Amino acid sequence: MDDGSAEHARQKLVAGAADMIRRRGLTATSVRELAKHADAPLGSTYHYFPGGKAQLAAEAIAYSGNATAAILARELERGPLDGLRSFLIMWRKIVVDTDFRAGCPVLAVSVEAVPEADGPPRAAAAAAFAQWTGLLAGSLCDHGAERAAAERTATLIVAAVEGSIAMCRAHRSTDPLDRIADSLEVLVRTATEPTREGAS
Amino acid sequence: MDDGSAEHARQKLVAGAADMIRRRGLTATSVRELAKHADAPLGSTYHYFPGGKAQLAAEAIAYSGNATAAILARELERGPLDGLRSFLIMWRKIVVDTDFRAGCPVLAVSVEAVPEADGPPRAAAAAAFAQWTGLLAGSLCDHGAERAAAERTATLIVAAVEGSIAMCRAHRSTDPLDRIADSLEVLVRTATEPTREGAS
Repeated sequence: MDDGSAEHARQKLVAGAADMIRRRGLTATSVRELAKHADAPLGSTYHYFPGGKAQLAAEAIAYSGNATAAILARELERGPLDGLRSFLIMWRKIVVDTDFRAGCPVLAVSVEAVPEADGPPRAAAAAAFAQWTGLLAGSLCDHGAERAAAERTATLIVAAVEGSIAMCRAHRSTDPLDRIADSLEVLVRTATEPTREGAS
Repeated sequence: MDDGSAEHARQKLVAGAADMIRRRGLTATSVRELAKHADAPLGSTYHYFPGGKAQLAAEAIAYSGNATAAILARELERGPLDGLRSFLIMWRKIVVDTDFRAGCPVLAVSVEAVPEADGPPRAAAAAAFAQWTGLLAGSLCDHGAERAAAERTATLIVAAVEGSIAMCRAHRSTDPLDRIADSLEVLVRTATEPTREGAS
């Protein structure tokens, strides 16, 4: 295998792991199934990921976190309100397109206190949450919000979106995501118009 | 075994399952370990729960959902703002007391698309989310909010709390829960003071 196809095979395993984790969680994600899905010999997974499932999971979380951050950063260029709307639309599409079978892999590993999730996967999850929150807070600041208010609002957006994705999956309905949109928009407007009554 | 001790043994398995699920998720929760933890013969679990792990999990989610609802209902008697604050304090205590190893079992089963989580456990999770949201929305309406605004605000509170618990576990910090408190209080005040500017 030349370097290009090895890199391609490795990347296919990482993307496959991200998809399996966002559907089933980490414990139910099997390296054996992943290898089969990626048409890779099982032994190759230990070659690519000498740290085993924990390493593969950490890379899958980082991959997914960075992909989401790239979309969020691009959409935030049009301002925090447009960024928020695109963020909600992106997640809505994921739950609808998978018939509510998939959500967010970053959240999934955060709620599994098993040895293989602790360490690198959890650290990757914390980094992803921090990255998304930082992008939203930065955009809010760029549009007039005070730093503390921006961080509070950004944290609330990420938390509410993550929680509502799980609620959508439980209810097999997009209602939770649809219902939080208006209130989050009000909070973004309030944070970025600090001279208005009730601001920050 | 008389009926009382049988009921006690059964209840111990349900509470143990709720605790294991809120730490590890459903896939990593083993009926064998649960039986051992509850000092019950493995065979008795199939006697008490002929539907197997799915039945045990569904009862564990309902048990946990009802326990949370009972506390929330009691605290909401002092008004929606006190209810919200108590809800946040309750979850903060769970993550702190368990050194961030435990969160919400209702969220955990919602994000695991495995056959044993689908069906009764997922339905129990949807019922728990609906129950908490309904209690919060009812309290907001009782204190002057319009029905639609109350439902939006209640959904946002449940979603944000659930998401921030997961973020706290990833970060090993209570910051996410602490940061969302102020904004949620502003939303509760806005919803229950509909004559003020900015009310929806």
